[in-house]
Amino acid sequence: MQKVLVIMGSDSDLPKLRSCLDTLGEYGVPYSARVCSAHRTPDLAAELAQSAEKEGYGVIIAAAGLAAHLAGVMAAHTVLPVIGLPIAAGALNGLDALYATVQMPPGVPVAVVAIDGAKNAALLAIQILAGSSADLRIRLHRAKKDMAEAVLKKDAKVQGVLDA
Amino acid sequence: MQKVLVIMGSDSDLPKLRSCLDTLGEYGVPYSARVCSAHRTPDLAAELAQSAEKEGYGVIIAAAGLAAHLAGVMAAHTVLPVIGLPIAAGALNGLDALYATVQMPPGVPVAVVAIDGAKNAALLAIQILAGSSADLRIRLHRAKKDMAEAVLKKDAKVQGVLDA
Amino acid sequence: MQKVLVIMGSDSDLPKLRSCLDTLGEYGVPYSARVCSAHRTPDLAAELAQSAEKEGYGVIIAAAGLAAHLAGVMAAHTVLPVIGLPIAAGALNGLDALYATVQMPPGVPVAVVAIDGAKNAALLAIQILAGSSADLRIRLHRAKKDMAEAVLKKDAKVQGVLDA
Amino acid sequence: MQKVLVIMGSDSDLPKLRSCLDTLGEYGVPYSARVCSAHRTPDLAAELAQSAEKEGYGVIIAAAGLAAHLAGVMAAHTVLPVIGLPIAAGALNGLDALYATVQMPPGVPVAVVAIDGAKNAALLAIQILAGSSADLRIRLHRAKKDMAEAVLKKDAKVQGVLDA
Amino acid sequence: MQKVLVIMGSDSDLPKLRSCLDTLGEYGVPYSARVCSAHRTPDLAAELAQSAEKEGYGVIIAAAGLAAHLAGVMAAHTVLPVIGLPIAAGALNGLDALYATVQMPPGVPVAVVAIDGAKNAALLAIQILAGSSADLRIRLHRAKKDMAEAVLKKDAKVQGVLDA
Amino acid sequence: MQKVLVIMGSDSDLPKLRSCLDTLGEYGVPYSARVCSAHRTPDLAAELAQSAEKEGYGVIIAAAGLAAHLAGVMAAHTVLPVIGLPIAAGALNGLDALYATVQMPPGVPVAVVAIDGAKNAALLAIQILAGSSADLRIRLHRAKKDMAEAVLKKDAKVQGVLDA
Amino acid sequence: MQKVLVIMGSDSDLPKLRSCLDTLGEYGVPYSARVCSAHRTPDLAAELAQSAEKEGYGVIIAAAGLAAHLAGVMAAHTVLPVIGLPIAAGALNGLDALYATVQMPPGVPVAVVAIDGAKNAALLAIQILAGSSADLRIRLHRAKKDMAEAVLKKDAKVQGVLDA
Amino acid sequence: MQKVLVIMGSDSDLPKLRSCLDTLGEYGVPYSARVCSAHRTPDLAAELAQSAEKEGYGVIIAAAGLAAHLAGVMAAHTVLPVIGLPIAAGALNGLDALYATVQMPPGVPVAVVAIDGAKNAALLAIQILAGSSADLRIRLHRAKKDMAEAVLKKDAKVQGVLDA
Repeated sequence: MQKVLVIMGSDSDLPKLRSCLDTLGEYGVPYSARVCSAHRTPDLAAELAQSAEKEGYGVIIAAAGLAAHLAGVMAAHTVLPVIGLPIAAGALNGLDALYATVQMPPGVPVAVVAIDGAKNAALLAIQILAGSSADLRIRLHRAKKDMAEAVLKKDAKVQGVLDA
Repeated sequence: MQKVLVIMGSDSDLPKLRSCLDTLGEYGVPYSARVCSAHRTPDLAAELAQSAEKEGYGVIIAAAGLAAHLAGVMAAHTVLPVIGLPIAAGALNGLDALYATVQMPPGVPVAVVAIDGAKNAALLAIQILAGSSADLRIRLHRAKKDMAEAVLKKDAKVQGVLDA
Repeated sequence: MQKVLVIMGSDSDLPKLRSCLDTLGEYGVPYSARVCSAHRTPDLAAELAQSAEKEGYGVIIAAAGLAAHLAGVMAAHTVLPVIGLPIAAGALNGLDALYATVQMPPGVPVAVVAIDGAKNAALLAIQILAGSSADLRIRLHRAKKDMAEAVLKKDAKVQGVLDA
Repeated sequence: MQKVLVIMGSDSDLPKLRSCLDTLGEYGVPYSARVCSAHRTPDLAAELAQSAEKEGYGVIIAAAGLAAHLAGVMAAHTVLPVIGLPIAAGALNGLDALYATVQMPPGVPVAVVAIDGAKNAALLAIQILAGSSADLRIRLHRAKKDMAEAVLKKDAKVQGVLDA
Repeated sequence: MQKVLVIMGSDSDLPKLRSCLDTLGEYGVPYSARVCSAHRTPDLAAELAQSAEKEGYGVIIAAAGLAAHLAGVMAAHTVLPVIGLPIAAGALNGLDALYATVQMPPGVPVAVVAIDGAKNAALLAIQILAGSSADLRIRLHRAKKDMAEAVLKKDAKVQGVLDA
Repeated sequence: MQKVLVIMGSDSDLPKLRSCLDTLGEYGVPYSARVCSAHRTPDLAAELAQSAEKEGYGVIIAAAGLAAHLAGVMAAHTVLPVIGLPIAAGALNGLDALYATVQMPPGVPVAVVAIDGAKNAALLAIQILAGSSADLRIRLHRAKKDMAEAVLKKDAKVQGVLDA
Repeated sequence: MQKVLVIMGSDSDLPKLRSCLDTLGEYGVPYSARVCSAHRTPDLAAELAQSAEKEGYGVIIAAAGLAAHLAGVMAAHTVLPVIGLPIAAGALNGLDALYATVQMPPGVPVAVVAIDGAKNAALLAIQILAGSSADLRIRLHRAKKDMAEAVLKKDAKVQGVLDA
Repeated sequence: MQKVLVIMGSDSDLPKLRSCLDTLGEYGVPYSARVCSAHRTPDLAAELAQSAEKEGYGVIIAAAGLAAHLAGVMAAHTVLPVIGLPIAAGALNGLDALYATVQMPPGVPVAVVAIDGAKNAALLAIQILAGSSADLRIRLHRAKKDMAEAVLKKDAKVQGVLDA
């Protein structure tokens, strides 16, 4: 199975990436987690992106805050799908990271999820990999069903308590 | 090859989708273009999303403006990757569509590109399909190289004229 | 008397809906409180909206945060008045929910109240039901008067203390 | 049948209200259209709001731009449902009007529709009046069906032309 | 000397008005502090504004949060200068109050100070009253000088400690 | 009568100030109009502000766009009331000028009117001067009445045409 | 004299850079103008930045719109001062470019000027180079004086016409 | 070596400037830290800016919050490079300071760094001074290398722990 390359701009982003890594783990999707800054280690960033395809990665997830260039830099160096995860940090609380990640110019796409949307970054990666994995797709269907049932249970519980 | 399902919330969005459809065409990726509103034809939206997988689609692109729910509605009914394309329209000029498309809750991801970023929506879809198509990947590499060369040519031209 | 259907996108929104439910209760307006996600349980959402009219509901209140599609999905499936209550959550603190709820396209209205404006959602529902209930209208008039008197009392108290 | 009171803050808003008035007309809902400014004619505003109920109005629509207080002033003086229609005008292009209309304090609700969402203001008013008019409700259902069919026709047309 | 009428939309705004009232007190400017809501006690608001001139007030300060209409309502009913003080409250943290206070239409001015800028509201009122009070103007000059000297002292202190 | 000092940051702002100067003229209030930039002619700005009081000015109006510091610089050098008029210009269309003008620190107030709200800047100045001019106050009352009547006429006209 | 390296993300930005290049020319500062995209030609971007110092450049100006990463990428590869010039383009009109350029993480500074502030980008570069060029500094002083005099002339002209 | 003049609008900004002063200290760059308000001590501000060049300063750093005019005022009175550091404070949390600092008009540039980006303000100053100091440039190169190595170490550590 193709692997997912998860890159964070700073190790301080790690707690916010927890649910991303956990979700990949739950689906049995192999991944590497790397710390690599678009601005502090630009050569490593370029190298990771350029080698990702032949290293067997199928998707890249890049998480960064502030003037979040990491996903864009990755996308500049690869034709693999790059998922951008804007991290809320500093005075603008993630709006800067969202704009810096999503407003990519024509020719170099980044697939952006919500600010701090770490779990969805993982799920999107899995949906992409599921294009060539019947097993992953089955698991995605099952999880979708489970998620719905969890809501229905909460609904039943709330109904019992609140109706007037 | 897997197909791409391109859905627009209104036929008035069609001119903005032109570069998306053209790009899919250039790569020889088969697609269907549909008009379907999350709010005016919710049943059709649900049906298109639910049947997309078995109809042979590998990716869905959903373009909408204002309170742009179309991509989210698609994502609610499928485990295929859904690309959200926010369209600039009305007084908020696309910021509403961006927020309504990107801030999806955990469990239901949408892959969002820039406001009016139609070409990148297509390229992202192709990058995803390239996960199971060596041919598409080769073409993406070639296009990336062509794009760089086009910039270099412009650079050479500007250099000749402007340097002081 | 017609009932009010109160739907929340997540049971974590329940504390913020407390003043909504309490207000409906104070006016003796019967209601059902349901947990139902536009994205996780889209079929339930459609079903609740479609059946609301014949189940005897006169108004729907839909509360959701982030890319808040719940009110819009309800409105897509019913001709009952749908009140959208944007919930502050995540990095954008409700601005995303406000935009996603209020910027509905022509043909499918949602009646939006303030971010976290749970009490006003209830009062608006009651004002709507009062169109066919002389009793409710009398109570609304009385409450309006009481509210004014409460302010006057505070005014008297502040005047006594602060004037210089 | 109860009437709708449509108030605009300035006669320059009239072109933007055209689709509101036309929609009320199509449904055969009687209305009065008035020019009345919260700031320039505050007494008239108070008077219109206070007398609206006994004059046989069932809903008030208040359209205004900039620091749009008109809907709030109406709501201060009546227990009828007040629909706020923010008008895009000036440098902030309607965002000021949206905030000034939607962020009402607890106790005095306003039902807000999209910036320049004149048609939806009318439809929301009709949905509210339909609470005591079986005929209006039937027409709303029919219009909803017609609207869906119009989209389906456009879909068919686009499909014929664009598929690749 | 002319008095200042200080109106707050809610007694919960009182702590934020403390520095306003204190400043008026320091300058010996007589004032009345009132609680009066544009939406909950609109008649009182109108009455206070209409009678302010003949009651001997020379300036009105109106403090309110959210869809802050209080200053605008005052200005609608008087030709006295009205100072609008936007209060930070709720999810939009005062941006709503700023827009609702400052974007007044031509003909009905409000003089707006910073969000939560209570002290400046008082100083502006005093500057206005100083137009007919030589004594107040002298005190304003003295305070301006004192303020500068306080900064110079801090500067001297910081210089001693930090220079490298 | 005290005069009004009207300062614009650039002569390109002059067309936007037309209604300000015209309004001062209609009320017979003497004024000087000056071009003076906080950044390009800071010494002139300081000098104009410092000498304004003894030159017989009672109010200063400062109009500027972008990082609009003009009103703040004036306020730093005088205890006269300074009215800040943010001008819409450049990519941020006046939001920068609004923030730069209104968010003054404690101790140095500026009285801010709407973006491009030139007429209200003049009216506010007149309201301030009216504190020591019974004649101006009478004219303000008359103008307020005229303004209301003009709205009533438009209302009558619209009523005749539109009611259904 | 050290040279200035002016890089634009796209040759479509050239008209907006005109006043930058003209200003450098007026001061006799040698420069190279290059087209180079952070995303389409990342290797060229890295190379230009890395070699700039030894090629004799003293300052880099990087102009880009949308998710404007160009200045940040330059700064990642050099210790020369990098001036970021955000270009207004697309639906967000430069706010995206401003955020993406200014919110750089600690360790990798970019010196940002106004959106479309091309002339100031040049002046800032000249101010920096003037640190080791007495001649440039003299010219900057002279230009500052000329600029002030130009304002004074406009002031004189406006005074003659407008005073009332 | 040329010195850096660090000015803060209020001594309450001092904690946020700590990393700026520390960084200057680490590089052995002499500096003066001053408290000086554009609005409370405008004459001192003008004087500091006017005399900075002949006092041997090569760069000015100006830190301020709210309607942050300090950097602009400095730039108005000097041709030295002025670095603007917007400080997050008050309800708008630094967005006001960013706009007020960065949107300078043509002719008077300010070099703006991130909101609360104190360390980068220092580094930018050092990069500018390094234009005439080979020693500083060597240290900047070394620090850039050290910074990259620190990231690589964190990367190694995270890799060891997280890979799945």
